[in-house]
Amino acid sequence: MTKSLSYVRPEVRALTPYSLKQPECQIKLNMNENCFGFPDELKEEVWRRLRRRDWARYPDFHPRGIIEGLADHTGVPADWVFVGNGSNDLLQMTLLATLTRETKMIVPAPTFTVYRLQGAVMGATVIEPCLHPEDFSLPVEQLVATIEAEHPALVLVCSPNNPTGNTYPSDQVRPIIEAATDSLILLDEAYVEFSDQNFHPLLSDHENVALLRTFSKAWGLAGARVGYMIAHPSFIQQIRKVKLPYGLNILSETAALVALEHVDLLSEQVTHIIEEREKLFTALKRLPGVRPYPSETNFILCQFDRPTDEVFNACIEAGILIRDVSHYPNLESHLRISVGSEQENTALIDALSNFLMN
Amino acid sequence: MTKSLSYVRPEVRALTPYSLKQPECQIKLNMNENCFGFPDELKEEVWRRLRRRDWARYPDFHPRGIIEGLADHTGVPADWVFVGNGSNDLLQMTLLATLTRETKMIVPAPTFTVYRLQGAVMGATVIEPCLHPEDFSLPVEQLVATIEAEHPALVLVCSPNNPTGNTYPSDQVRPIIEAATDSLILLDEAYVEFSDQNFHPLLSDHENVALLRTFSKAWGLAGARVGYMIAHPSFIQQIRKVKLPYGLNILSETAALVALEHVDLLSEQVTHIIEEREKLFTALKRLPGVRPYPSETNFILCQFDRPTDEVFNACIEAGILIRDVSHYPNLESHLRISVGSEQENTALIDALSNFLMN
Repeated sequence: MTKSLSYVRPEVRALTPYSLKQPECQIKLNMNENCFGFPDELKEEVWRRLRRRDWARYPDFHPRGIIEGLADHTGVPADWVFVGNGSNDLLQMTLLATLTRETKMIVPAPTFTVYRLQGAVMGATVIEPCLHPEDFSLPVEQLVATIEAEHPALVLVCSPNNPTGNTYPSDQVRPIIEAATDSLILLDEAYVEFSDQNFHPLLSDHENVALLRTFSKAWGLAGARVGYMIAHPSFIQQIRKVKLPYGLNILSETAALVALEHVDLLSEQVTHIIEEREKLFTALKRLPGVRPYPSETNFILCQFDRPTDEVFNACIEAGILIRDVSHYPNLESHLRISVGSEQENTALIDALSNFLMN
Repeated sequence: MTKSLSYVRPEVRALTPYSLKQPECQIKLNMNENCFGFPDELKEEVWRRLRRRDWARYPDFHPRGIIEGLADHTGVPADWVFVGNGSNDLLQMTLLATLTRETKMIVPAPTFTVYRLQGAVMGATVIEPCLHPEDFSLPVEQLVATIEAEHPALVLVCSPNNPTGNTYPSDQVRPIIEAATDSLILLDEAYVEFSDQNFHPLLSDHENVALLRTFSKAWGLAGARVGYMIAHPSFIQQIRKVKLPYGLNILSETAALVALEHVDLLSEQVTHIIEEREKLFTALKRLPGVRPYPSETNFILCQFDRPTDEVFNACIEAGILIRDVSHYPNLESHLRISVGSEQENTALIDALSNFLMN
């Protein structure tokens, strides 16, 4: 059978599917998951609630419990919150609501590659100004000039940024927002719980700012796929038109709600992960030919003197999977390492020492 | 605050959000859910598996268990199957893969309104030829002529059709497929388990046919949001580019897998629902001023002599919520009633008798 697939949009046909080299390894330090897992006592509580529910019924049209829980947690009114099947789902719906073949999207890079891929799916022109290579800070003047010249529909900024690990201070982001009055500014805060900094204060002054958050990182629920958006109700209303109803299943919704009701338990995990991160940073810094970057996330970006594929494979041989980011712009000699448990981090340092010192 | 929302696409701004009048009622016969619920013993099995899993880890990049289970169940190779967050999610991804402002979509109507809404989200021209008003059969000649004149990227047919309840025989659909060689033919079979007829045999001869199926109806898992597509691998590859990875959470995936492994238990429920449907049809037929249409689904479309809003409200007063479809084309005097348990159906017939005979 030969077929032209002429009914598939050319920008989709032109894409390569997102894929991930994932050899089986005992220790997974490649996806920035919460290494401590979702606590067993919370799983039991999720089950107690789920066994009473009728799974054959659709979720509520407006899932009030989780929305009000998130409104409480973040200190916004309920109509500023929208929940989805992972923050990537909300990212895609935002791109679908704003982008066409005729519009542009600005994304400072290196950053999460899904942004560019999904922008391309929409057929939009994706412009990727480079972060300052020495510290990955925002090139504010260049961004402002690009916004003024290109009139993008969307400016997408990830902070703390994946895979560089740094945040952008509000005084770097404000001039960008002020230049982009006719754009949506989407700020992806997937790792915000590991940082002291967030963009929540920008919301009240700027109707065109939307924040993306997730339960997949600090909250230990990557398996449940729950994310949320915080934005002015005028934009939430638009997303509601694009996103199909009943997007969040009742099992994941219950898990997220139980997590929210036990925020103290999860904050302890976050504190623990941050401690491990700082220990890991110090240990990496002591290794020869490794330059770790300071991180406000649950991962650490490292520059290596030795070829990254050799380092990557040496880790795999030791049963540890890390993330190769050497194909990202300006990260030719870099790898990304998720913070694991004390034991996992020690195993990583041992594997790197063995390789680098031989 | 006044804001133009100029960054939102005009076709999205122009839409009204999908909404649903859902007064609280004891008996819900409005959403075609499985009235018997997902069996408790299967819920327990789901929990036994989930308590052992680490919820903080992302789902598998290729969720092999559920994909192979579905391939087995439907008799296709695994690379013909794609799983998503409800069949609506896969519908949206298919529209995103095929439609632009420059393309057209043909959808025989009346049918599920989400098709038109999502086509509009993509900015496509949506053409809705009317089904034959007397029996809701396909206007085959008209469809073939429209396809030849309009060159649609997508032809979308729901069978068994919601809200009319009938199927389209393959000999009505074949000439449409043969005319639409440059289109994708998306066949939504959400209710297929309640019917003797399905379009699976069309797959082997037509690379441009895709089937949509769901766990939300017969399988009793509307709360879990699981759907799947069966199509030639060349199209599955394209959908894989548009759809973000990790779309199906591990909780829902486990529920769907447990359901698949207990297909006998769920087949018994389906048999039971079909028996109740036939009893309900007979009872509706006996009522004065009601014309029920034969159904191969778990709902029955009825035409009423009395104004539909009066009938609808009379049901609500009796604590029963049915679906008002009187705003659909050619359904001005119609309501849709899901098949419930014996007790629920009896309550409905009592409520209608009381209203219609007074």
